[in-house]
Amino acid sequence: MVDSDLVTLRRDLHRKPEPAWREFYTTARIVSELESRFELDELHVGPDALAGEHRLAVPDDAELADWYEQAREYDIDRSVLDELEGGYTGAVAVLERGEGPTVGLRVDIDGLPRPESDDADHVPTAEGFRSEHDGAMHACGHDAHATIGVGVFEAITESDFSGTLKVFFQPAEEVIGGGKSMAKSEHIQDIDALLAAHIGLDHPTGEIVAGIDGFLAVSHLEATFTGEPAHAGGHPEQGRNAVQAMATAVQNLYSIPRHSDGPTRINAGVVEGGSAANVIPEEARIVAEVRGKTTDLMEYMRSNARQVLNSAADMHDCEVEIELGAEAPSATSDADLVSVVSDVASETAGVETVLERDELGGSEDATFLMQAVQDNGGSACYVGIGTDHPGGHHTATFDVDEESLEHGVAVLAGAIERLSSER
Amino acid sequence: MVDSDLVTLRRDLHRKPEPAWREFYTTARIVSELESRFELDELHVGPDALAGEHRLAVPDDAELADWYEQAREYDIDRSVLDELEGGYTGAVAVLERGEGPTVGLRVDIDGLPRPESDDADHVPTAEGFRSEHDGAMHACGHDAHATIGVGVFEAITESDFSGTLKVFFQPAEEVIGGGKSMAKSEHIQDIDALLAAHIGLDHPTGEIVAGIDGFLAVSHLEATFTGEPAHAGGHPEQGRNAVQAMATAVQNLYSIPRHSDGPTRINAGVVEGGSAANVIPEEARIVAEVRGKTTDLMEYMRSNARQVLNSAADMHDCEVEIELGAEAPSATSDADLVSVVSDVASETAGVETVLERDELGGSEDATFLMQAVQDNGGSACYVGIGTDHPGGHHTATFDVDEESLEHGVAVLAGAIERLSSER
Amino acid sequence: MVDSDLVTLRRDLHRKPEPAWREFYTTARIVSELESRFELDELHVGPDALAGEHRLAVPDDAELADWYEQAREYDIDRSVLDELEGGYTGAVAVLERGEGPTVGLRVDIDGLPRPESDDADHVPTAEGFRSEHDGAMHACGHDAHATIGVGVFEAITESDFSGTLKVFFQPAEEVIGGGKSMAKSEHIQDIDALLAAHIGLDHPTGEIVAGIDGFLAVSHLEATFTGEPAHAGGHPEQGRNAVQAMATAVQNLYSIPRHSDGPTRINAGVVEGGSAANVIPEEARIVAEVRGKTTDLMEYMRSNARQVLNSAADMHDCEVEIELGAEAPSATSDADLVSVVSDVASETAGVETVLERDELGGSEDATFLMQAVQDNGGSACYVGIGTDHPGGHHTATFDVDEESLEHGVAVLAGAIERLSSER
Amino acid sequence: MVDSDLVTLRRDLHRKPEPAWREFYTTARIVSELESRFELDELHVGPDALAGEHRLAVPDDAELADWYEQAREYDIDRSVLDELEGGYTGAVAVLERGEGPTVGLRVDIDGLPRPESDDADHVPTAEGFRSEHDGAMHACGHDAHATIGVGVFEAITESDFSGTLKVFFQPAEEVIGGGKSMAKSEHIQDIDALLAAHIGLDHPTGEIVAGIDGFLAVSHLEATFTGEPAHAGGHPEQGRNAVQAMATAVQNLYSIPRHSDGPTRINAGVVEGGSAANVIPEEARIVAEVRGKTTDLMEYMRSNARQVLNSAADMHDCEVEIELGAEAPSATSDADLVSVVSDVASETAGVETVLERDELGGSEDATFLMQAVQDNGGSACYVGIGTDHPGGHHTATFDVDEESLEHGVAVLAGAIERLSSER
Repeated sequence: MVDSDLVTLRRDLHRKPEPAWREFYTTARIVSELESRFELDELHVGPDALAGEHRLAVPDDAELADWYEQAREYDIDRSVLDELEGGYTGAVAVLERGEGPTVGLRVDIDGLPRPESDDADHVPTAEGFRSEHDGAMHACGHDAHATIGVGVFEAITESDFSGTLKVFFQPAEEVIGGGKSMAKSEHIQDIDALLAAHIGLDHPTGEIVAGIDGFLAVSHLEATFTGEPAHAGGHPEQGRNAVQAMATAVQNLYSIPRHSDGPTRINAGVVEGGSAANVIPEEARIVAEVRGKTTDLMEYMRSNARQVLNSAADMHDCEVEIELGAEAPSATSDADLVSVVSDVASETAGVETVLERDELGGSEDATFLMQAVQDNGGSACYVGIGTDHPGGHHTATFDVDEESLEHGVAVLAGAIERLSSER
Repeated sequence: MVDSDLVTLRRDLHRKPEPAWREFYTTARIVSELESRFELDELHVGPDALAGEHRLAVPDDAELADWYEQAREYDIDRSVLDELEGGYTGAVAVLERGEGPTVGLRVDIDGLPRPESDDADHVPTAEGFRSEHDGAMHACGHDAHATIGVGVFEAITESDFSGTLKVFFQPAEEVIGGGKSMAKSEHIQDIDALLAAHIGLDHPTGEIVAGIDGFLAVSHLEATFTGEPAHAGGHPEQGRNAVQAMATAVQNLYSIPRHSDGPTRINAGVVEGGSAANVIPEEARIVAEVRGKTTDLMEYMRSNARQVLNSAADMHDCEVEIELGAEAPSATSDADLVSVVSDVASETAGVETVLERDELGGSEDATFLMQAVQDNGGSACYVGIGTDHPGGHHTATFDVDEESLEHGVAVLAGAIERLSSER
Repeated sequence: MVDSDLVTLRRDLHRKPEPAWREFYTTARIVSELESRFELDELHVGPDALAGEHRLAVPDDAELADWYEQAREYDIDRSVLDELEGGYTGAVAVLERGEGPTVGLRVDIDGLPRPESDDADHVPTAEGFRSEHDGAMHACGHDAHATIGVGVFEAITESDFSGTLKVFFQPAEEVIGGGKSMAKSEHIQDIDALLAAHIGLDHPTGEIVAGIDGFLAVSHLEATFTGEPAHAGGHPEQGRNAVQAMATAVQNLYSIPRHSDGPTRINAGVVEGGSAANVIPEEARIVAEVRGKTTDLMEYMRSNARQVLNSAADMHDCEVEIELGAEAPSATSDADLVSVVSDVASETAGVETVLERDELGGSEDATFLMQAVQDNGGSACYVGIGTDHPGGHHTATFDVDEESLEHGVAVLAGAIERLSSER
Repeated sequence: MVDSDLVTLRRDLHRKPEPAWREFYTTARIVSELESRFELDELHVGPDALAGEHRLAVPDDAELADWYEQAREYDIDRSVLDELEGGYTGAVAVLERGEGPTVGLRVDIDGLPRPESDDADHVPTAEGFRSEHDGAMHACGHDAHATIGVGVFEAITESDFSGTLKVFFQPAEEVIGGGKSMAKSEHIQDIDALLAAHIGLDHPTGEIVAGIDGFLAVSHLEATFTGEPAHAGGHPEQGRNAVQAMATAVQNLYSIPRHSDGPTRINAGVVEGGSAANVIPEEARIVAEVRGKTTDLMEYMRSNARQVLNSAADMHDCEVEIELGAEAPSATSDADLVSVVSDVASETAGVETVLERDELGGSEDATFLMQAVQDNGGSACYVGIGTDHPGGHHTATFDVDEESLEHGVAVLAGAIERLSSER
């Protein structure tokens, strides 16, 4: 049986998805849920939950203001909203229960800027909790993650756990924008063991992955080429062609040599340039990302990418400005935590299969928190919670099987309890 | 002295610039000017003035409707506007004066989609006839062209001209969109001699170019590449990368071999592709143009461009759809007409310099009309009317010296009269 | 103490290095060594040792004849040489010792087409066994491999081994040309366990790697673009430019997407094209190789490479002929054999370090034999025998520490004995 | 009737073609012909005929020595050969005939490094004067040019010419290597009128082009990229790939923007790079040429080409060395000389058609001499002498109709005489 409060919470969040740094309603709703139901020892909200100067990929003020205004129209605590203004979203909830380890749980809470399916057989449509926004959707299950965070808090409250629990409700994961600012906050510094979790990832309901690895370090970069326009018929030689520079760069970015130390990635994901068919293009832009199995490999790619971009600009007598965007390091799940999670999961009702390890193959900014904890001598582990999801992640028909909310809460809370008893 | 009616007309048109196929007010204003002042033997408006199915580069319905609605708010004859609905703009005015040649004069009437300078020393600003639209401007002098067309009609009315005069008020030159539809209309078929004219072109007030040549044939083409998206970190090999196809195409478009028969041009003027840094781009687009000194050379470029675009798509396992856009042929001014214009100009008050020939180096869709007349055995000539213009063509500070309106009227009307007396 | 016969043999082979398919003297010398010292149950030489039609990367007849003639000038058995004519080199020596497993040992015997150092402190120079050929050298230790093959044969002869031993003296490894033809011969079909070995690979004397993995599957391909020449000044448009096609291909070959299933490689290692500065190039050539962690990944690269090459030719109106060259599959060392080798090595005098596993990261055509044995239900293992080598593999100062010959013989013969006793 | 001495001379030169800077026999034969038949006022041979330090594209010493030795085996004056050693070929013959203009005639004398057809119907084969060298041929008619030079000298000797005649027998035209050194010599400085001539060029026997124009300025450049090799399977990231740099350069060289001032050309005529399929290529080379209608346009191309080459090297972390090779300026034929030639040609027996002007569309280093004379205030003119040539220039079946030797001598000598009488 699924806890009806959790389902209610998850569906409410699903109905009001807010993309990165715009999680105004979402944060306020989580805070209100926690405060109304539990005795919190500490609650850090918005600017107090993160190191604001380390936020990455923050949208512009106008965009933030639009979403903020929208949140204010909902039935929600205005005093919490006030603290979040300007894109300082997220929260850290703390429970102190005597002697014992300080255990962290990190869940992310942001939605995606894409429309949701209105097919009649898409469950949120059928059951009336489809996104209220045309252009936003919880298409990656972070509504479930936030809900599981609350559920774990509840479960630990009711358990024999001894020690300190901190639940990190992290904003802006989808743009790898929020992890760094939470990792740089004081709240992470005393964590002995950190669990992070993700639902789905092509694992079915009833399957748990004890330790996910293979996070690729990632960095976004945006190159803007500036040349000189000219009449393409009358005086083509007077132009300095930013689109030629861009095309040369794209060709050579993808051909940065493969590296024998492990996987690397490059993508020129968005490009644009020029103004009219008959004008030699004076401006062009590439939004790219590089990745590597390790942070070193990502830096190998980034350094090569910069050289390609600069030389391509030189070649066509253009200038190029390269802005580094959001980034995240690589990370691995520690064996000791993986083992605890695996043991607990094997004993959890409803869990039918436990995989010791699996590879993500993508990137995640939970790695900032994992790395911070590991750098301080603690352990970290990223847990996969299977759920039957009809559409793929980030697609219009993504949805979670609410049965798996229980599994997530049970496995994570169980592991947290086990950690306290073992130390 | 400049005719005050002409100045008034030019300034009114300048105040209300309308880009290609949106010349609703402009057409109605010209029609009203003609009807109110002259006895017209024939007047063909909108769909009757052109072969509608040959209109090129017509904007979408919503765009047309916006401008149409705007025009309806002006103080202008609604019955004329009614005829123009749907982007059937332009007019042909006919004067029949007995035996003699049928002479055509082609002037274009559209504005450009760009803002006008609000500098205090920009004459239209200083004298209160700056564009009323933020995003449109007569930045190429077509307001003066339309005015000259009316002025010539007036002058011929008062002259000894014997024969038939047709003035073509052509829409949509800036997108090389209107020339073909007028060239395909019945009105062009009996023209014995066609004059077209352009003001400025870096020639000062008082200078006339009797025959402009060097029109490059031009063709626009738009290629849309379609591939397959994939997660750039997780499964780059599952993508079919439309941006790589596009970049390969751009590189190879510019390297189509130069041709020994004469100048050719290529420009990938607008490009765009992809959706997000972390998604292998599934779509990309190139808006390009090719030109050639002759229509054959333009076709050499176009055929090579198609091959490049198709092969680039194949290389990256993408599809590409290539749409041909607007186009115009090359043309040359006939020596007999050039000689008449040159002679007349030399005798015209205010004209200080007459150049026999000059090269345009760009493209113009007057060439459709010139070619149609020449194909029928007639002669054609494109006349340059010097004017001191502070800013370059298509820039925010472009303006004409209104003195040159008189020169244009005098030279063109004089040439038309001379043609009637000579034959 | 190093066996003086082995040192003598190794130095004689070192003095007369013969590249792929030219191992005439080398084969004859090995055969003579074996026949003079041991009672062989079977000896298969040249065409009888391999499936001739599966030889890859065979040089042309003139080249073969040159080396053949040279071999005939040495003091060596002409009747053996006669069998090898036309590039059918290599041998398989068989020892039958009653009941028991059929164990194979594969060693390669070819030299490299590169000069050897004449530095005074290069041991072969100092001790008088430097290569007698200006343009050939045993720069990868295959002289030591052949010698170890003979040494193992000797050791097994003198041991309690029960079963059948086949030593494969394989030609043409350096061009991945010989492995396939031995793998396709009948001699491989009854092998229960196959050992292959390589000396050096940056492991020092006294170190043994029980099982080497990470062989990348590899395939060579050669693309020849044919276009049409034209005078580059007079009629550039009449050319069909094979160098442009080649350059487009090179750019896009290196940018074939990375694959999430594992490492891939691409290299356009040799390119050439054109005839003169003032002629549009009518011909160009790329000699490339692709690799993959698995044979499937190599085929992914090869298939993409073909598409790039074909599309690049199309783009520039050229033809392209693609010839597939030599290739080798990937392979892994079987755990059962690795365990035996590891155990034996740990007990072998002179062996100080035993590594269970290491990655090669390159390619080897021993994989053909390994795969053939594994496909038949047998096991295979590739053993690394450390040696202090002053220069890197394939460089002018490569040499082996002859101490390691003993280690190689002891570990391999020991493992072979152990296999017979265990089954 | 063709002068039998001239035919004999032409056929002897044809039999012994010598490419650029190797015209040892050729020069000696011309000198011997002149000295034996005429009273020369001055004769400058080899180093005295040109400014040696301005020779371009001189082959290496070994190549020069081979051809020099070969020439010494012919029956020819050794003392002349001695002067030419080291590639100082060519001669200037002077005839002083009192008061009057100093008129120059420039003919070139080198062969091409290509084999000649041995078809039975190729006239030189049929009539026994086919090239004696397998790898060299007079495939552009310079044997005829040298012969015409001698013929004109003879004709002027026998004429009423008053003034000074200098005939420049120029070496190394085919590599645009000899013109500059003759233009920089003292002999050119007092020339009032210079004629140069070329046979064929697709004009038939009996046709004369009075003034050829449209010489494209040209410059050769050779770029050598140096990177770093690496094992393409094991450590691709350790390489610095010179072939990638080269391919990027080739793509971008061809896409240097077309120029509105007139025709430009670019060709990457010869490329090569790399050493083996499995080695990241450490070296690559491009032999390219750029051209322009004017020397400025050529320099526009050259400057852009250098930028492309340098940036392509940077992009792939390679070095590039760019060597400028031979070059030649553009030039035009002066109207006064064209008129004289045209008049004379119209009156010449055997000449059926006279074209006033034609475009070459290629390059020629006669332009160095033309420009030098024009810079000194003199006039220059390049004359085309039609001849029926079965194969195209530079092909194996090129040959001249010996009838046209007479036309060339008559028109050029006639024009020289006319010049003396007119001034």
